[in-house]
Amino acid sequence: MKRFKLFLQKLTPFQLIAAYYIIAVSVSVALLSLPVAHQPGVDWSFMDGLFTAVSAVSVTGLSVVNISDTLTVPGIFILMFVLQFGGIGVMTLGTFVWLIVGKRIGLRERRLIMADQNQYALSGIVNLMKQILLLVLIIEFSGGMILGTYFLKYYPTWQEAFLHGFFNSVSATTNGGFDITGASMIPYSHDYFIQFVIILLITLGAIGFPVLIEVKTFLFSKKGKYRFTLFTKLTTVTYSLLVIGGTIMIALLEFQFFFQDKSWHETFFYSLFQSTATRSGGLATMDVSLFSEATLLILCALMFIGASPSSVGGGIRTTTFALNLLALYHFAKGNKTIKIFKRELHEDDVKKSLVVTLMAFVLCFTSVFILTITERFTFIEILFEVCSAFGTTGLSMGITPDLSIIGKCIIMGLMFIGRIGIVTFIYIIGSKEVKPNYHYPKERVIIG
Amino acid sequence: MKRFKLFLQKLTPFQLIAAYYIIAVSVSVALLSLPVAHQPGVDWSFMDGLFTAVSAVSVTGLSVVNISDTLTVPGIFILMFVLQFGGIGVMTLGTFVWLIVGKRIGLRERRLIMADQNQYALSGIVNLMKQILLLVLIIEFSGGMILGTYFLKYYPTWQEAFLHGFFNSVSATTNGGFDITGASMIPYSHDYFIQFVIILLITLGAIGFPVLIEVKTFLFSKKGKYRFTLFTKLTTVTYSLLVIGGTIMIALLEFQFFFQDKSWHETFFYSLFQSTATRSGGLATMDVSLFSEATLLILCALMFIGASPSSVGGGIRTTTFALNLLALYHFAKGNKTIKIFKRELHEDDVKKSLVVTLMAFVLCFTSVFILTITERFTFIEILFEVCSAFGTTGLSMGITPDLSIIGKCIIMGLMFIGRIGIVTFIYIIGSKEVKPNYHYPKERVIIG
Ligand SMILES: [K+]
Ligand SMILES: [K+]
Repeated sequence: MKRFKLFLQKLTPFQLIAAYYIIAVSVSVALLSLPVAHQPGVDWSFMDGLFTAVSAVSVTGLSVVNISDTLTVPGIFILMFVLQFGGIGVMTLGTFVWLIVGKRIGLRERRLIMADQNQYALSGIVNLMKQILLLVLIIEFSGGMILGTYFLKYYPTWQEAFLHGFFNSVSATTNGGFDITGASMIPYSHDYFIQFVIILLITLGAIGFPVLIEVKTFLFSKKGKYRFTLFTKLTTVTYSLLVIGGTIMIALLEFQFFFQDKSWHETFFYSLFQSTATRSGGLATMDVSLFSEATLLILCALMFIGASPSSVGGGIRTTTFALNLLALYHFAKGNKTIKIFKRELHEDDVKKSLVVTLMAFVLCFTSVFILTITERFTFIEILFEVCSAFGTTGLSMGITPDLSIIGKCIIMGLMFIGRIGIVTFIYIIGSKEVKPNYHYPKERVIIG
Repeated sequence: MKRFKLFLQKLTPFQLIAAYYIIAVSVSVALLSLPVAHQPGVDWSFMDGLFTAVSAVSVTGLSVVNISDTLTVPGIFILMFVLQFGGIGVMTLGTFVWLIVGKRIGLRERRLIMADQNQYALSGIVNLMKQILLLVLIIEFSGGMILGTYFLKYYPTWQEAFLHGFFNSVSATTNGGFDITGASMIPYSHDYFIQFVIILLITLGAIGFPVLIEVKTFLFSKKGKYRFTLFTKLTTVTYSLLVIGGTIMIALLEFQFFFQDKSWHETFFYSLFQSTATRSGGLATMDVSLFSEATLLILCALMFIGASPSSVGGGIRTTTFALNLLALYHFAKGNKTIKIFKRELHEDDVKKSLVVTLMAFVLCFTSVFILTITERFTFIEILFEVCSAFGTTGLSMGITPDLSIIGKCIIMGLMFIGRIGIVTFIYIIGSKEVKPNYHYPKERVIIG
């Protein structure tokens, strides 16, 4: 035990986070493998359990089984619990547990949380975690009540209505992307009220916790002169532009195809819902494999970009994408500094965003490459699955259950990395070193 | 005329380079459209001429026509001339012309050449250009003589043998990638001597002019204590690793497929030749569309990386690729500086390499996206064509002649950008600005 503690203390915060996630997955595998969780006659393999657990802890939603045909009501509650666990983040929950058991939170623990949520300031972090948890629970409860009440018109008993209501609320808010209808949100593809609520819940989960906290602070500040941080401005604008841009692109690209026989409001809601889903929601009101290849490519790009940092989503994150574009633009302009919203970006952040994107490309390319060897699917199906896993989105063209063992392992790895984020991933694989303090003469080389 | 001169002077060096290339293409279109260049009965459209000209000036080698069925012997000579023009670079030739007509080369012209060859030192640039031209001509002449003599055993007349010898020598050295056999190097797929010579010529062209000059200087330096520049070391090592790595990957991936019924030496030469071809040579000893999808993906990646800077090749360039990998590695290690070959890399070069790669990704993704809308080919065929054009490689799965007008325009654009390089391209599209000299407070944001 002492040895184990010593081992833990030797780990960097980033490695500890990975360790926590792995423990969370292990516990989830165990819980999901309880006999009470499965319907009679279901053949539940270890791989099914592991994949479902990784997918749920990373709130991705890719699934090798049909949840409604496999899990019992207790099983569905376990899944909701795991989604909650993954969505709010192992760290937030860990902090909360520590608070409950009365342990004082030391600097080391605070640093750990800081790394998980990628925050730069240590102060108030415990308070922040409490606020996050409270906020998420309030959002989920409100969503569950609204959807549950509304679902009374869909389902015969109030138990069923509220089970669907709360499961959908949790699955949307945590961006879990799982469904218990057996066909995602397709049964509600013409119910715009449900879609509106789901879109709202997905957005609240994926816009980033700091944004929610800042909006709350803004609303409760008396003078109304609260200044939003650069991060909040940047991520909210990028997030909105991605959703709007995605909606327009889908509508335009499918105008003559999938939307040919659809009305304007069907076109609008199908486009908006699927665009929102790529931020990391993962629920869908249609079979996305019906889209044309060009649309699927756009969805791949959107999923690769993913959600806001410090949110329930994955991908390279909105700020990374924004900084990439800003870096390109200002490089072309020959500007040394990047100014945005009357603030200057830090050079290190810009470089970090470029390295993160490069790493993500390398990762996704390698995954696609291996899957083209191990799987028999088309290139776009594989690319779509890879981007969906890395973005912890959970949309699929339907190949997930038929992946080979190697294929499933790769997709699990991508969901894990997508959830913890590329920065954490890079630090995990590379953070054992002694920095040498000497210099060589600088020499320039020719680039591009 | 005076107005035109004034207009020229207002252009930045980067824009001037683009202008020169455009003029080169225009002249080539005109030359290739001369009636004497075509065989009787050939239907030569403007688009055919434009595509062939862009492909030849950018020494890519993608072709919408079968050269041996279309061009006459004079036409082939015109094509060789255009390849020469594109390969050695409009700037090198321009310098040479200026020297011949006795014009003194001013600072402005020197700057221009500097930008084209991406050099940092102005001094000796004219001398360098003369050396390059001389070197290339010597290489091509030697190659032509060797191949021509050897081809006497393939072709009935010495005229034919030396036409093939010299065309192949020019096409290989300039990495032009065009063929007059009608089937690239497939007729010589079992002649290892020809392949060896062609590989040597391709490498001499694609390894980078500065490397050749440095090797020459090294060989002629008496003390033998010549120190190679960081650039030469970096690009040569990367180039070699890419060729060796590519050869191994192709051999392993096709071991059970294309190479199943082949001997070890066939496997080795097929792998080595096609690997070398992806650096930017573009000639092939087999139909690459026979490769499996995984191999084609690796070829795409290799073509995307491309050849050395200041060479006849395209892509993001070897040094960019090397700096990308170094940046990833040292970022993971948490190192502030990147040391390699007992030298330190300049921070700006590292950032530039990341921006260049990002821009290249955006460019290729956008191209693939548009082509999935306009064309009816498979995804891998489109991706392969795009990477081949951007890398000015010229390998193709055979879709080039059947591209739509929009498709051809996009491929031409990629060949042009691939040849002038992403750095020049970025500066061309973004270099009109007044740098404001004020600062905002710096603020950090959360990345990835
Ligand atoms: K999801
Ligand atoms: K070529």
